[in-house]
Amino acid sequence: MKQTITEQDIREWVANRDLAEIRAALPILAPAEAADVLRELEPAERAVAFRALPHAYATEVFSHLSPQAGEALLQDLTEEETRRLLAELAPDDRTELLEEMPDRLTQRLLNLLSPEDLQEARELLGYPEESVGRLMTPDFAAVDPEITAAQALERIREQVAETETIQSIFVTDDVGVLLGYVDLGRLVTASAERTVGELVESGVVSIRAREDQEEAARIMEVHDLTVLPVVGREGVLLGVVTVDDILDVVAEEATEDIHSLGAVGHGPAPGLRSGLREATFGMIYRARFPWLFLLVFMNIFSGSGIAYFEDTLEAMIALAFFLPLLIDSGGNAGTQSATLVVRALATGDIRTKDWLKMFGKELGIALALGLSMAAAVFGIGIWRGGFELAWIVSFTMVGTVTFGSLVGLLLPFALERFNFDPATASAPLITSIADIGGVLIYFSIATWWLGL
Amino acid sequence: MKQTITEQDIREWVANRDLAEIRAALPILAPAEAADVLRELEPAERAVAFRALPHAYATEVFSHLSPQAGEALLQDLTEEETRRLLAELAPDDRTELLEEMPDRLTQRLLNLLSPEDLQEARELLGYPEESVGRLMTPDFAAVDPEITAAQALERIREQVAETETIQSIFVTDDVGVLLGYVDLGRLVTASAERTVGELVESGVVSIRAREDQEEAARIMEVHDLTVLPVVGREGVLLGVVTVDDILDVVAEEATEDIHSLGAVGHGPAPGLRSGLREATFGMIYRARFPWLFLLVFMNIFSGSGIAYFEDTLEAMIALAFFLPLLIDSGGNAGTQSATLVVRALATGDIRTKDWLKMFGKELGIALALGLSMAAAVFGIGIWRGGFELAWIVSFTMVGTVTFGSLVGLLLPFALERFNFDPATASAPLITSIADIGGVLIYFSIATWWLGL
Repeated sequence: MKQTITEQDIREWVANRDLAEIRAALPILAPAEAADVLRELEPAERAVAFRALPHAYATEVFSHLSPQAGEALLQDLTEEETRRLLAELAPDDRTELLEEMPDRLTQRLLNLLSPEDLQEARELLGYPEESVGRLMTPDFAAVDPEITAAQALERIREQVAETETIQSIFVTDDVGVLLGYVDLGRLVTASAERTVGELVESGVVSIRAREDQEEAARIMEVHDLTVLPVVGREGVLLGVVTVDDILDVVAEEATEDIHSLGAVGHGPAPGLRSGLREATFGMIYRARFPWLFLLVFMNIFSGSGIAYFEDTLEAMIALAFFLPLLIDSGGNAGTQSATLVVRALATGDIRTKDWLKMFGKELGIALALGLSMAAAVFGIGIWRGGFELAWIVSFTMVGTVTFGSLVGLLLPFALERFNFDPATASAPLITSIADIGGVLIYFSIATWWLGL
Repeated sequence: MKQTITEQDIREWVANRDLAEIRAALPILAPAEAADVLRELEPAERAVAFRALPHAYATEVFSHLSPQAGEALLQDLTEEETRRLLAELAPDDRTELLEEMPDRLTQRLLNLLSPEDLQEARELLGYPEESVGRLMTPDFAAVDPEITAAQALERIREQVAETETIQSIFVTDDVGVLLGYVDLGRLVTASAERTVGELVESGVVSIRAREDQEEAARIMEVHDLTVLPVVGREGVLLGVVTVDDILDVVAEEATEDIHSLGAVGHGPAPGLRSGLREATFGMIYRARFPWLFLLVFMNIFSGSGIAYFEDTLEAMIALAFFLPLLIDSGGNAGTQSATLVVRALATGDIRTKDWLKMFGKELGIALALGLSMAAAVFGIGIWRGGFELAWIVSFTMVGTVTFGSLVGLLLPFALERFNFDPATASAPLITSIADIGGVLIYFSIATWWLGL
């Protein structure tokens, strides 16, 4: 057997159609070396040689080709070969390849695939989970701007199977770049001679395939769209997202947020997206236990706070009466702010950069709420233990409500800032943090006031 | 002046076009009497006489007509007269009239109105807030089943202004009853001679105008629709709901639920639908204070529980360390169940009647969670105060987690059953209830165990 293999050898084998020899001989080279040799060949020769290689080895070799050489090779492979190759590539190699791939090739890959393969293909194309690319469908109608309305209708009649829905007809140039859209209703009602170019609405809103599907939902909501075109890096129309899919997205995202706010799933455990009815005992247990467990250990801090101030508590046991009321009020106020901020961040009503403005507003509201609550409990304080207790309880109330509110406000912003889900700032988590603060505020004020 | 007025008098005045006399004379009758007299007239005479009456009096008289006579009269009035009359009727009279009104007349009213008046009209038509009737638009295209595809396209070309969107063409019979739909794409791609009747999809999903808009969202989600036809009591097509409006509904309902779960607004105070950014200080204060205030008074029960067991607490002050941990765990577990149930009820994943099945499942899960948590805190119990305390704490943990979970499960079902919003079972509310139970469970077990 030869020590090494040159491009000359391969050229001869290809010319002689001696594929068995290629298959047997080439694997003595390391995949990177084979890639170097293949790079020297003409594209047609390279495709033939590549096809002859054993699958696993071919995939290895492919991942060592330059993106340009890889793309050229993909153009020459059949749909089935491309699909198998993409499926066998390691995810990071695949993503690297696809990041570099021209839109036209992506479009071709999407269009070649049968609907059943589409879901798999969108994964293979490396679109991240919950991205627009995973949601889009290549079932759209597109026409050139030069043709007339009548010709466009004719073209659509040919393009579309009888059962399919066409809502908007997109207008693209000769390389597939999205120029605008024309409504099917408008095409139908326009006089036959007008060209598509005259009827086109150019202010078309589109989204990139790698964007988050929540962004698509936001755009469709703001612009009241039923179909949103999805484009690649170069503006080529790759597919469309329809509003009925977005409806599912909006509902699912809301469920996720609601569950997170209730300390169910996410963060430490997987969620219950599929709904409660179908959730098994084990699924629910796993979604709930981690948070309960984690929070117990946070509550140990509150307990330690109480234990630290045991002397104060023994000196004035009436303080115990107000403990739930004071620490819960802080937690409740914090839950309210967190809820408002988490939802406003999710709907795009506010952004991370608004935190300081929101902080100022919240500080004012928290103080107003704290003072109102203090007034409400002052009388109860007198009733349970006289003026001294009443003042301690009232000052503590202002402190706990303000502390809780500010934690509830800032935690979601902080989580968002560091790329965590802001909805992780759940009611139970905020409550536990507010409890720790509440215990310390309460007993510090009491110890100081009572001169202990 | 005459003592009374007979139908004969009115007939004469109408015949003589002596409208000033009618206007001056008729109001001496009580509105109910005038209605009796008018009922005797021919419809044409009645319309003339009615128009002559002063506005406020006419409205009174109208509310005393039988629904049939009222309808007949409405048919003879102009759009403007009808609108004014409906606007001036008391809401309950209006609803009574409209409940009885034939679909055709409703349809006519909706179609007569200009788009600017439409929002007002939907209110006037007595559709409840958040009902499908408030959301629907009468901008739809409908054709007969007998005509051909080509004729249908011609008809649509006439019906629809150039700027409007047509997604589905509805097929209705000669009195406007919805028979099915045909996709515009299908009409365009079908050969021109086929009749609409041959192309129609008869399995059309529709909704009644008085249904809740959440139900429309559910239907559109399940059936993946972009347009949902809205029909009256007799099946007449009144309008359509488009999915982009539903998208707003889904997002708004989710916001409402999230806010309610966070004890912001609803129940005692108005919500913050408009979003946090635009909410004023006063709006936020009013949405938050009532719940905080209410919950303080619930927390007094927890405080009273602690005060009741003051001797137990003084006998073993180490019990105080575990107080936040034990009562919070119950609240946290309850928040989790409430969150899951509220969301599942909102999405239609479970129904009120499922409560018993859910109860059984929850009982199992709650015990499993409680036992796991008990195991987690047993060691801490030994560390803080020995085996005695460890057992008290562990038993309490099982009790509080189970109690909290069951409250969290049952409260939303109970609220839904009595037609309150299940999302009122907010994290802070559940926490407060769980706290009361937790304090009682903890100190009862401790008092009994310590033999006090």
